[in-house]
Amino acid sequence: MDREGTVFQDLSHLVLPRSIVVVGASDKPDSIGARTIENLTTYSTWKGELTLVNPGRQTAAGMPCLPSVLDLKTVPDVAIVSVRAEHVVQSLNECGERGIPFAIVFTSGFGEMGEAGHAVEAQMREIVARTGLRIYGPNCPGLNNINAGLGMSFSPAYRIDRMPGPIGVATQGGGVGRSFMQSAMARGVGTGLWFSGGNEADLQVSDYIHYMADADDIRVIYTVLEGVRDGPRFMAAALQAARRGKPIVALKVGKSDYGAKAAASHTAAIAGSAEINSAVFRELGVVEVDDIGEAVDVATLLARGQPTGREKIAVYCFSGGSGALTSDRIGIEGLEMSELAPATLDKLKKVLPPYAPLGNPVDVTGEVLADANIAHATIEATVKDPNTQVVLVPIPVEYGKTTQLLAECMVKAQVGEKTPIVPIWMSDREGEGHRLMVEGGLAPIRSVRNAVLAVKRHVGYGRWLAGRDAAWQPLGQPQAAPGERTAMSEAAAKKLLQAAGVNAPVGTVVHSAAEAADAFAQMASNRVAMKVVSAQITHKTDVGGVQLGIESASQAEAAFEAIRQNVSAHHHPSVIEGVLVEPMLDKPFVEAVVGIHRDSVFGHVCTFGLGGVSIELFKDVSRRLLPLTPASARAMVMETRCHDLLVGHRGQTAFDVDALVQTLVRLSDFVVQHAEQIEELEINPLAVRPQGQGVAALDAVLTHSSKENFKW
Amino acid sequence: MDREGTVFQDLSHLVLPRSIVVVGASDKPDSIGARTIENLTTYSTWKGELTLVNPGRQTAAGMPCLPSVLDLKTVPDVAIVSVRAEHVVQSLNECGERGIPFAIVFTSGFGEMGEAGHAVEAQMREIVARTGLRIYGPNCPGLNNINAGLGMSFSPAYRIDRMPGPIGVATQGGGVGRSFMQSAMARGVGTGLWFSGGNEADLQVSDYIHYMADADDIRVIYTVLEGVRDGPRFMAAALQAARRGKPIVALKVGKSDYGAKAAASHTAAIAGSAEINSAVFRELGVVEVDDIGEAVDVATLLARGQPTGREKIAVYCFSGGSGALTSDRIGIEGLEMSELAPATLDKLKKVLPPYAPLGNPVDVTGEVLADANIAHATIEATVKDPNTQVVLVPIPVEYGKTTQLLAECMVKAQVGEKTPIVPIWMSDREGEGHRLMVEGGLAPIRSVRNAVLAVKRHVGYGRWLAGRDAAWQPLGQPQAAPGERTAMSEAAAKKLLQAAGVNAPVGTVVHSAAEAADAFAQMASNRVAMKVVSAQITHKTDVGGVQLGIESASQAEAAFEAIRQNVSAHHHPSVIEGVLVEPMLDKPFVEAVVGIHRDSVFGHVCTFGLGGVSIELFKDVSRRLLPLTPASARAMVMETRCHDLLVGHRGQTAFDVDALVQTLVRLSDFVVQHAEQIEELEINPLAVRPQGQGVAALDAVLTHSSKENFKW
Repeated sequence: MDREGTVFQDLSHLVLPRSIVVVGASDKPDSIGARTIENLTTYSTWKGELTLVNPGRQTAAGMPCLPSVLDLKTVPDVAIVSVRAEHVVQSLNECGERGIPFAIVFTSGFGEMGEAGHAVEAQMREIVARTGLRIYGPNCPGLNNINAGLGMSFSPAYRIDRMPGPIGVATQGGGVGRSFMQSAMARGVGTGLWFSGGNEADLQVSDYIHYMADADDIRVIYTVLEGVRDGPRFMAAALQAARRGKPIVALKVGKSDYGAKAAASHTAAIAGSAEINSAVFRELGVVEVDDIGEAVDVATLLARGQPTGREKIAVYCFSGGSGALTSDRIGIEGLEMSELAPATLDKLKKVLPPYAPLGNPVDVTGEVLADANIAHATIEATVKDPNTQVVLVPIPVEYGKTTQLLAECMVKAQVGEKTPIVPIWMSDREGEGHRLMVEGGLAPIRSVRNAVLAVKRHVGYGRWLAGRDAAWQPLGQPQAAPGERTAMSEAAAKKLLQAAGVNAPVGTVVHSAAEAADAFAQMASNRVAMKVVSAQITHKTDVGGVQLGIESASQAEAAFEAIRQNVSAHHHPSVIEGVLVEPMLDKPFVEAVVGIHRDSVFGHVCTFGLGGVSIELFKDVSRRLLPLTPASARAMVMETRCHDLLVGHRGQTAFDVDALVQTLVRLSDFVVQHAEQIEELEINPLAVRPQGQGVAALDAVLTHSSKENFKW
Repeated sequence: MDREGTVFQDLSHLVLPRSIVVVGASDKPDSIGARTIENLTTYSTWKGELTLVNPGRQTAAGMPCLPSVLDLKTVPDVAIVSVRAEHVVQSLNECGERGIPFAIVFTSGFGEMGEAGHAVEAQMREIVARTGLRIYGPNCPGLNNINAGLGMSFSPAYRIDRMPGPIGVATQGGGVGRSFMQSAMARGVGTGLWFSGGNEADLQVSDYIHYMADADDIRVIYTVLEGVRDGPRFMAAALQAARRGKPIVALKVGKSDYGAKAAASHTAAIAGSAEINSAVFRELGVVEVDDIGEAVDVATLLARGQPTGREKIAVYCFSGGSGALTSDRIGIEGLEMSELAPATLDKLKKVLPPYAPLGNPVDVTGEVLADANIAHATIEATVKDPNTQVVLVPIPVEYGKTTQLLAECMVKAQVGEKTPIVPIWMSDREGEGHRLMVEGGLAPIRSVRNAVLAVKRHVGYGRWLAGRDAAWQPLGQPQAAPGERTAMSEAAAKKLLQAAGVNAPVGTVVHSAAEAADAFAQMASNRVAMKVVSAQITHKTDVGGVQLGIESASQAEAAFEAIRQNVSAHHHPSVIEGVLVEPMLDKPFVEAVVGIHRDSVFGHVCTFGLGGVSIELFKDVSRRLLPLTPASARAMVMETRCHDLLVGHRGQTAFDVDALVQTLVRLSDFVVQHAEQIEELEINPLAVRPQGQGVAALDAVLTHSSKENFKW
């Protein structure tokens, strides 16, 4: 069991079995069974025990075939199942009965086909529950443990795409995994382990990520997610990777309506809300990318060494235009160029002609580059510069001998140096120079924009890792209690908040115009707000249930009547439990909005932003999983673009950010204590008053599970 | 002379000269002179007359050398100058005297070296002015007219990089041009004409763009701009390209501080404000890109046909994951997927297996693709679909025979069809399929993100072209009168605005506390604002010169004193011309900000946005060159994200957008009439009142050239 309470099975013997049985073995040319055996024998260096099962054959590929796994003398670690769809359940049943721990099911024709297929997958899960067999697939191309020389796959591409390396891949579909693998290989970086788990009837991407987090041969994890099915499991796996300092590079499909629709048409996974997904990824240090190409850029760079988050960049170029383009992107992406140390500048000055501008970018001009000594001396000086942690080398053109020479100097200069030299091979024409860089481990990236973006992600991961709170665990309660939801009245919700230590002023609840006038007279304030009290009405303004700026007892009487009439136009008058008379807060204050809701995948998420156009038009909000800590709550406040307003930019009023942060944490603690019951809590507005004056929840809505009354 | 009043010389004889003289001819192996002659003879099919000049030689490359261009019997169209830097001015002088119309100067060592070099370039311009010679360069690799088989270049790469084609390129530096050219060639699209004009002592990128706008062999123009030196010239060239329906794809260097610094270190061009540049590009239909790779994607797509702006997209795929990824990006970029016509669906249904989901994306699965007939029938049905104008085909992997077959079917299906089939070759491993697509003219793009972005730019250009106002011309007065600037007092500025038809209420100017009290008593409003009147003070609030919400005569007296004392703390009391007493406008109104300022490159630019956080934190503004038209002013208002607030989203108050638009046009007309004098005009706030109630300029600042008083 994992620290988070999520159980992860040890997958060592799935990934590197001591023995394998192929169920559905065949030697019919080009059949799935035959190709599988070929991959396991001819193209694998694996030395384990291989047995074959096929009731209709005596032998396959020159080896004996048994009628059933029940006839096996010993229990293999893995059964590879490639029988016809209608026989899969029986085969799995037999595997389970025989005590086989893992089955890899190639066969398709299940969940991806619709309802009937889903039902068969449910049967597979019953076998898992009953026998302890764990299922990988169905509808998958297999599992390639390339670092161990083992291809459990029917794909004819296995024989080509097997370069060992530090990257581990976990995908559902096959194409998006192999695409990554081919591109990384073309840049000289191998994918040592590839899980392509298809429909995920049982085991899922999170299980594979968790395995790779602990696997010694994997340094970077790449995953494509069509949807996260089990949020707490994914979060536990991601936290394990973080503990091991292994970045997860993730591509999420289904961020737009078109994407979600297309994903749904071929997998069973639910594509959750893109914003929540991205927020959770950010919080867990998962590096989200937009494209497979970007994933290759980022993963191959991260594979070269763990970033610190404090990297500064030098640009080394032999074409002024490409140097300027690269510097430009560095500035646009908010990264920092390094200031070269005086000793570095001295070294450059010694070998460069007098007219060459000294500094960063290091522009050695095309002429100079033709001299191997100068080229080597300058790139060596740059990579050894103590103020530089990444060297970007934009190469605009394939230029025959010149780019070849440059490549040789770069590869030589990289030896023994920790600072990565990252070539940007901008031309679609590849040449000998490109080949040398690939061979030399420099993993060239294709365009300036992509290269700088990859560095940004690299540095960002380093910064996250350096700042992460190792003790923090997400609450992880996505499952709501079944049944209807109940909303509380504002007054009731505010009383709960008060008990939780949140300043939520409640006025007087009145039931008649006369009581309203009395209440006004007894208020210390000479300006009050009046609001309908009703558990049935969450949007009080929409039904005319709010009257503001009341400044006399007679106005209070009139306001009471107005509220009564307005609300009665929308609801039966009996829903009106009363009218709240509250003193209005003196300006200045800033109106913030805090919402906590239960996400059905990841559990409770807190959303913070300032009210008005900031939220409505600019969607300027920050999000965090519960529980918040003082540090994460402060970060939430500071990362909205509106934080300038709170801290008082340009000499304006500074507001009580400390009280705001404390309130966010108290709200979080309150929801954590009642996580099973609370579905949604929104304070809108939360007035943030000037420094030292605290905050005040001016309205509150709380929705909870309605099986019984709210308990606390 | 061009319609805009900008003079463009006819460059036909520079681009395709009837005769060329090489000044500095040589046959020293690998010298610039020798390589130039080789490119002109061995590697060019050009049939014009070639003569050579070199005072130190009798012959070069087996041809006679004359001592000077003055000795030439006839006048060549172009002199290619490759003499040493110290002899360039003399050579150009002789070219001018001999009446040669164009000189291409390869020699470097001028403006890029600093001050002394700039001075020599000024001498070159004197020769231009005196003799009519036009200079291309210096410090340039030459001019390649590949469509005409003519390389006026010393570059050894010319012999390799010469694929004729519909793209024309105009750059300053060489690397960023050749990078584009190599990549476009690798995708099967040739660059037929490449201007690489180096330091641009005389002719500049705008001249080359203007030439290409009218050149029959060029359909798409690509340019890299380190800075726009002459804004009106650039705008005139861009408008000419628009008239011809030829897109300009532009990459601007120097958008960040790092980029601007790096650009400045190797060219003499001024990198203007990135925001203004981008706004001008958008308004002129120039397609701005971020990266050379993006430029290749966009230009090669635009070269396949002019977009209408109404393109809808079909995705054709054989891997569900890549189809979903592509659909996702289409949604994220705000593009539209096509709804396949019933007849198309019928065709697909006939050949696809029953389980294949019918619709867009067209997912034919990998198995199906192995059947050439089905593959061809499905891609043909997709490209012929009447509701589809672009077909994207994501190909996640190089897959040997499968991708080869796919390529064959795509190339065949494209024949005779206008709708472009755009392959997305996602793998870094290229194969036979890729080669066939390149050969077949399908110009594959490398990644899903890039491909969808290219389609977005393509469609965006079509939309711009369809909506452009052919009669509109920019004002184009970037040059301010020399000398100091003078600011007008608010009262004076408002009076000018009133005369221009803008509602700018001016109250009463008072000079004592007693007068203030009197003025208050005579106001119709019982709430007034008081503001210091002074031409010396533009930021009245910063010096305590504004008092709001005054509701009694005695408050007015006190406010007068407060303003006097506050302002006196910052300025000598004599700068106070008086205090303005103005009625305060009743709520509700929306505070807009309108600014017009003279940009030193492009001339007067109008900036519009809503006040408060929208401008300060979110930079939510729109910009247009003057003059505004009713349509462009309305577009300005509608394209800010805050426009929802003005039109009254979700049943809230709608404000007077018509009056706002009318006011923007009147302000534009006013500034156009006085463009020589007006440097800056800002109305902040411009109150936009509810529909039918108009707008009111509540404050105004006008800065003009101060040689004399403002005339109107």
